[in-house]
Amino acid sequence: MSRQNYAVATGVDVRLAARNEVHTGPTSGLAPGFLQANLLVLPVEYADDFRKLCARNPVPCPLIAESSCLGSFDSVSGSTTPRLTMKGCVDLRTDIPAYMVYRDSKLVRSHCRDIKDEWTAGHVGFLIGCSYSFETALAAAGLPPRHVALRRNVPMYRTTLALCPAGVFTGGTYVVSMRPYRRRDVEQVRAVTRRFGATHGEPIAWGWEALQALGIRDVDAPEWGDAPLTMDGRPLGGMRREQGEQGEEEEEEVPVFWGCGVTPQEAVMRAGLRGVVMAHAPGHMLLLDARDEDVVG
Amino acid sequence: MSRQNYAVATGVDVRLAARNEVHTGPTSGLAPGFLQANLLVLPVEYADDFRKLCARNPVPCPLIAESSCLGSFDSVSGSTTPRLTMKGCVDLRTDIPAYMVYRDSKLVRSHCRDIKDEWTAGHVGFLIGCSYSFETALAAAGLPPRHVALRRNVPMYRTTLALCPAGVFTGGTYVVSMRPYRRRDVEQVRAVTRRFGATHGEPIAWGWEALQALGIRDVDAPEWGDAPLTMDGRPLGGMRREQGEQGEEEEEEVPVFWGCGVTPQEAVMRAGLRGVVMAHAPGHMLLLDARDEDVVG
Repeated sequence: MSRQNYAVATGVDVRLAARNEVHTGPTSGLAPGFLQANLLVLPVEYADDFRKLCARNPVPCPLIAESSCLGSFDSVSGSTTPRLTMKGCVDLRTDIPAYMVYRDSKLVRSHCRDIKDEWTAGHVGFLIGCSYSFETALAAAGLPPRHVALRRNVPMYRTTLALCPAGVFTGGTYVVSMRPYRRRDVEQVRAVTRRFGATHGEPIAWGWEALQALGIRDVDAPEWGDAPLTMDGRPLGGMRREQGEQGEEEEEEVPVFWGCGVTPQEAVMRAGLRGVVMAHAPGHMLLLDARDEDVVG
Repeated sequence: MSRQNYAVATGVDVRLAARNEVHTGPTSGLAPGFLQANLLVLPVEYADDFRKLCARNPVPCPLIAESSCLGSFDSVSGSTTPRLTMKGCVDLRTDIPAYMVYRDSKLVRSHCRDIKDEWTAGHVGFLIGCSYSFETALAAAGLPPRHVALRRNVPMYRTTLALCPAGVFTGGTYVVSMRPYRRRDVEQVRAVTRRFGATHGEPIAWGWEALQALGIRDVDAPEWGDAPLTMDGRPLGGMRREQGEQGEEEEEEVPVFWGCGVTPQEAVMRAGLRGVVMAHAPGHMLLLDARDEDVVG
């Protein structure tokens, strides 16, 4: 249960609480069942290349909605379903608890409360699906993600797995999130998350051999989030090394990797764009009016 | 100009010529401007996983249409645009000049003229976009693909680049096609093909460094098609080795790689499916009524 003294039961509750600066923290766990989205705001000259980047890499970059018109901050149109469309009752410049602002690819403001001064008529906002949706479904299936149970952040890693390039967006690679599961549960975990195609879908790799395939050197040293722990609180990779690296037991916990919405942010940063780019601050997402179930298929 | 004594000017001309077995050869160059498609026919129990495989890997697996209903061979529905829908005047069992048939993942018939005996009410046909579309556009832009100019087949390679898995389709990797271009032309080649999102779109990698990134050992030894040649008919990779491997000249020809429609076939073969799977024979495609320009965006 939330301990806030303001309502955050629905998507619009959270947006208004952020707009009025009564909620300024992370959004994990708020308004359960409502979709949360990553925000990226780009100068219009990069918009079409960015759409193509997402279309070519839908697993790590699931574009679910964007500004209805050039410069629109109060109206977004769903990319795949009209249920994601929001007109009125949304302001992309104020309704996220914390934003990041980049100028000529350099961070110039961190965790600011709004982007009203930076948003121009030449900007386009893009909403990218988020893995919170399938985490709810995993918990409901009796497979709660470890980091949720331990109240930590999900570990995220850079990989060497290439994105399909699109226009100015070249040289990017997948960022992945990781949740450990027992080997015998992996097929069920795959099945539960498979339906969430608009929010990363099923894992892209699993098992210890996935580390090499993805170019991840140390599972205990994620680039973002908190290091992964076993059920009893020990480092996941350290545990594997202690027990010897040959095990194939069904009870052993193995890393399971999903495409991660940090991917398009990384691709944008890497592209060295000119002008002002904006994004949500990590963990501080936009709450939508659509429900998780509105985007499963 | 075609030297056939039967009409192959339009998509339906070629389909009827194949149905009546008056045209039994490859389809490259027939009915210029009409879309050509790869065919894969799967038992229905694998259909949903296959749709997800394509949705998660749209660059190498651009699903453009499928049987309108379970078992339909005479009606296909476009996946992205109604212009790809065909009802009547098409028979997926007969309208391709040559087919391959697999039973329990083993090839049992090669280059057969129809699949009427094998098609059942439990089959679903899938049409996958083909790179012929953008090759026409490249030629029109003054950048004709080398293999077309030399009347050879495009070279195709297995890579180590992982597909995003989907259900039973795990462990697959990209297959790529390759066309050499001068380094100074690569950006224009990218721009011309970028619009063809339903037929592989822009290249996924280019330059000599792409060989290592894709895990291709020898550019002169493709797994399918003919080895690539320079403008004056010498092996492309051999030429590079002769000239020393440090060059960065704008005039030098470098390999440019695109996602290839052989990818989903390889993924299907790798999955060890039970039952009867069917496909077009390499180079023998289905001609559609839609034009290349109908799927650009």
